[in-house]
Amino acid sequence: MNADVFAWPVRIYWEDTDAGGIVYYANYLKFMERARTEFLRSFGVDQSRLAVEQGLAFAIVSANIEYLSPARLDDELVVTCVPTTRTRVSFAFTQEVYRGRVGGELLVRGETRAVCLDCKTFKVQRLPEALIEALGSKVE
Amino acid sequence: MNADVFAWPVRIYWEDTDAGGIVYYANYLKFMERARTEFLRSFGVDQSRLAVEQGLAFAIVSANIEYLSPARLDDELVVTCVPTTRTRVSFAFTQEVYRGRVGGELLVRGETRAVCLDCKTFKVQRLPEALIEALGSKVE
Amino acid sequence: MNADVFAWPVRIYWEDTDAGGIVYYANYLKFMERARTEFLRSFGVDQSRLAVEQGLAFAIVSANIEYLSPARLDDELVVTCVPTTRTRVSFAFTQEVYRGRVGGELLVRGETRAVCLDCKTFKVQRLPEALIEALGSKVE
Amino acid sequence: MNADVFAWPVRIYWEDTDAGGIVYYANYLKFMERARTEFLRSFGVDQSRLAVEQGLAFAIVSANIEYLSPARLDDELVVTCVPTTRTRVSFAFTQEVYRGRVGGELLVRGETRAVCLDCKTFKVQRLPEALIEALGSKVE
Repeated sequence: MNADVFAWPVRIYWEDTDAGGIVYYANYLKFMERARTEFLRSFGVDQSRLAVEQGLAFAIVSANIEYLSPARLDDELVVTCVPTTRTRVSFAFTQEVYRGRVGGELLVRGETRAVCLDCKTFKVQRLPEALIEALGSKVE
Repeated sequence: MNADVFAWPVRIYWEDTDAGGIVYYANYLKFMERARTEFLRSFGVDQSRLAVEQGLAFAIVSANIEYLSPARLDDELVVTCVPTTRTRVSFAFTQEVYRGRVGGELLVRGETRAVCLDCKTFKVQRLPEALIEALGSKVE
Repeated sequence: MNADVFAWPVRIYWEDTDAGGIVYYANYLKFMERARTEFLRSFGVDQSRLAVEQGLAFAIVSANIEYLSPARLDDELVVTCVPTTRTRVSFAFTQEVYRGRVGGELLVRGETRAVCLDCKTFKVQRLPEALIEALGSKVE
Repeated sequence: MNADVFAWPVRIYWEDTDAGGIVYYANYLKFMERARTEFLRSFGVDQSRLAVEQGLAFAIVSANIEYLSPARLDDELVVTCVPTTRTRVSFAFTQEVYRGRVGGELLVRGETRAVCLDCKTFKVQRLPEALIEALGSKVE
């Protein structure tokens, strides 16, 4: 994993942990979404504006996660976000969660695919142009 | 606390606990809301229908919580819901969380006040009739 | 999907939803864990007792989830839990989330694999006997 | 509220919102805890180290929250943390949540009191010296 991929820091608080003393497994999906949101924002794609102005939202259609090593209270993680393939209506990311820094200890790795929907009808829509630019040209 | 107050069972899962080995303090607000929702449902007040049909929602305006003793993984709790005072636009509950059964070990006690709002404008609205019947006649 | 598989009911509350008006994608992992926990409990495998008495815990090592259709506030879901393959130290489940009843509208489908660990050292351990009986004989 | 009180930024993600389109009420307790944790960390009080080295933890014994105005997806909040009174075993904070910046639109205000406990026995303990320095001299 290249050190200049997009990465977003996540600090672990009590809310993230469980009675096993480690981060609860569902919470990594939250961290991954924070990183995806910030990746999109870094390209000017603001999801609340997209909903209001264009009536569009992104819904996750699949998530495949591998848990390699646990994170703990007060840990400083970084979550990467690398776009992989896209279709006219959906796009996928590879995401990795490291302790400390990208390329440090790899804790969790995942793939997610999102589809673009009409906020009201939940019908599939073409990706907005700003998103296509953010994602680059790799088309499935 | 009278044993025939409205009470709703809550089982503690991993998701509810934190690295201290106990239930995370914010999660009791979730349990209290489940009990309020079920209390209202038991009187025929269905919040998703209320939003669609009358454009109304309830928003919590204050919550005062005392944490007396911790709950742990696999615990079976019950959460009570007793309406206290109401105005034309707001209503309050006293809620208690017990281990095992109402009147058992008291873990958490709280007071919450909700206001009735227009879903879109967030302007304060009069309580719907079905809710007033559910709450009974104690008016502030 | 056979109607007499193990299934656990889940009611959707405000805490489970997001601003898209649907259940937040990470929360299905919570629902799946509730169903796994209850599946194990139905065979006498109590995770908090297992931790105290035998020093063992289960950690998820992979989760693959497909999101087919969204759940909403007040929905009544059921979550199935079907053991698939196991090794000496790990076991897997197929889980499906339906609206209404098993065999109703399929919303989410997932596969999770858990490994048995020593609570303190996080070293991999053999599955406890009670769990092997719960899971049946399908060995990888 | 003085602009140079301790304040911690919180960005609102999908995970924080509910189907009403606003931040779910229990989640402000998470944000307040993040700010308290960072306030303590800024004085060198690291809770995971405190647990390992001195066997101490802090448990919230009361929380009083007023919800004045809702936060929404993508909002940038700041959460203040001002120590108020303390005893030999407990300490309290006033916390405010603003949109944008301290002194901006006030959304939520709360008071929390924490007690110092032995991690294992849950018996009340005297506050550690580093914490007393962080909190300053206001004693109840």
